[in-house]
Amino acid sequence: MKLQVVKIGGKTLENPADRKVFLESFAQIEGPKVLVHGGGIRATKLAEQMGLPVQMVNGRRVTDAAMLEVVVMTYGGWLNKGIVADLQAYGTNAIGLAGADANLVKAHKRPVKDVDFGFVGDVDQVNGNALIALINAGMVPVVAPLSHDGNGQLFNTNADTIAAEVALSLTKSFQVQLTYAFDLAGVMEDIHDLNSVIPHINPNNYADLKSSGVIADGMIPKLDNAFDSIDRGVSQVRICHFSALSEEGRGTMIAAQ
Amino acid sequence: MKLQVVKIGGKTLENPADRKVFLESFAQIEGPKVLVHGGGIRATKLAEQMGLPVQMVNGRRVTDAAMLEVVVMTYGGWLNKGIVADLQAYGTNAIGLAGADANLVKAHKRPVKDVDFGFVGDVDQVNGNALIALINAGMVPVVAPLSHDGNGQLFNTNADTIAAEVALSLTKSFQVQLTYAFDLAGVMEDIHDLNSVIPHINPNNYADLKSSGVIADGMIPKLDNAFDSIDRGVSQVRICHFSALSEEGRGTMIAAQ
Repeated sequence: MKLQVVKIGGKTLENPADRKVFLESFAQIEGPKVLVHGGGIRATKLAEQMGLPVQMVNGRRVTDAAMLEVVVMTYGGWLNKGIVADLQAYGTNAIGLAGADANLVKAHKRPVKDVDFGFVGDVDQVNGNALIALINAGMVPVVAPLSHDGNGQLFNTNADTIAAEVALSLTKSFQVQLTYAFDLAGVMEDIHDLNSVIPHINPNNYADLKSSGVIADGMIPKLDNAFDSIDRGVSQVRICHFSALSEEGRGTMIAAQ
Repeated sequence: MKLQVVKIGGKTLENPADRKVFLESFAQIEGPKVLVHGGGIRATKLAEQMGLPVQMVNGRRVTDAAMLEVVVMTYGGWLNKGIVADLQAYGTNAIGLAGADANLVKAHKRPVKDVDFGFVGDVDQVNGNALIALINAGMVPVVAPLSHDGNGQLFNTNADTIAAEVALSLTKSFQVQLTYAFDLAGVMEDIHDLNSVIPHINPNNYADLKSSGVIADGMIPKLDNAFDSIDRGVSQVRICHFSALSEEGRGTMIAAQ
């Protein structure tokens, strides 16, 4: 049976019009599905409002104890519950999960090398059995970018990583498609030409696209991660516009062949 | 089969030592169980930190749009996810639910009479089937004091009411005991005498206890609600100390006979 795991960034969710388009598009996906959402800038705004200092190192947030509370409140509270309430209105029986819920995302504190990122978790395991139990009960899991260590500590955690690990945790029971939804139509040959979406990428043409420079810096780690997911059992990775989720074949399909 | 629904107030959860004692006591309850928690003063503190005005009418909070965000962040975010993370550490497979999750608590905006309380919900229905699905999957639902209207609107909602409605929603499938946990040993004959817990209250001695003045103002609505729950199918209501949850017979038992 097919199952869709969709990742959406916090940026899309913070624009009310984009959010509505995305959630309606997600609600229209048929069959079992899971949504993983990012965080976005509401946490930074709230921290400013509360008078907390925001520490960034190399463009990445340092999550101290006060910032962890902000992140759990915004990502696991307002954002996650708001998405769930909207999806319920669109007829999708969503259930929000954040970090420790149903022991979903186990992680450990990111080891300190040059920088101590604070309460940031590197994912060890996603509890696929919990997701399957919820899906079998007719629910649609909506996963916030948080994790826990099993000893009471919550962590701020990268949503792309959670989405990939959620997808992998379901490959034994489902034929899993992992979709990264964003504000472009897919992987583009020319970012200024809306008709230049590359429909299929496999290991063969990926090598050519990289060596010819068509696929550039920012997209390379995303595609490397996509191929890693495929190597580990995900059937297909899709990169597409946030409005096109329920339309098969839109965007860029990444597969083993 | 027996099932326990436990209500705990936000005040107990805000004291770290009390919180630990309560959660350990809850974790030790055997068999299926559900926790419903209150809110507490963190929301008020956060609103102050954010520079939001806190509006109270007759001692009750008015929940405007900004305050709703604060309440969802604190009750549904930090408090709910923190309880779940702690319970996971104590070996209880908790799953947090807030308002719209799994369509759990449907409500409507409290009608405006003398006061418009804003985004405060009066409960219409608790989705017992969703709770049963989670319980059958080996999970322990942890319910925040929030609800939704099914059209995307979240509400601030009284935790005692949610606990009673959660208990009622499970009476067809379980023999339900509803426990209100707080910082006294039970309903007391003399609040200054720790050994004066009234072990059993039924409709007969309740009339006597009221007419003799032993049971006074504050406790009467709580006991009226307890008898209402029993009339509607809950087997037993218990009022006990937050440390005594797993010890049968501690506190005051309220029953039809």
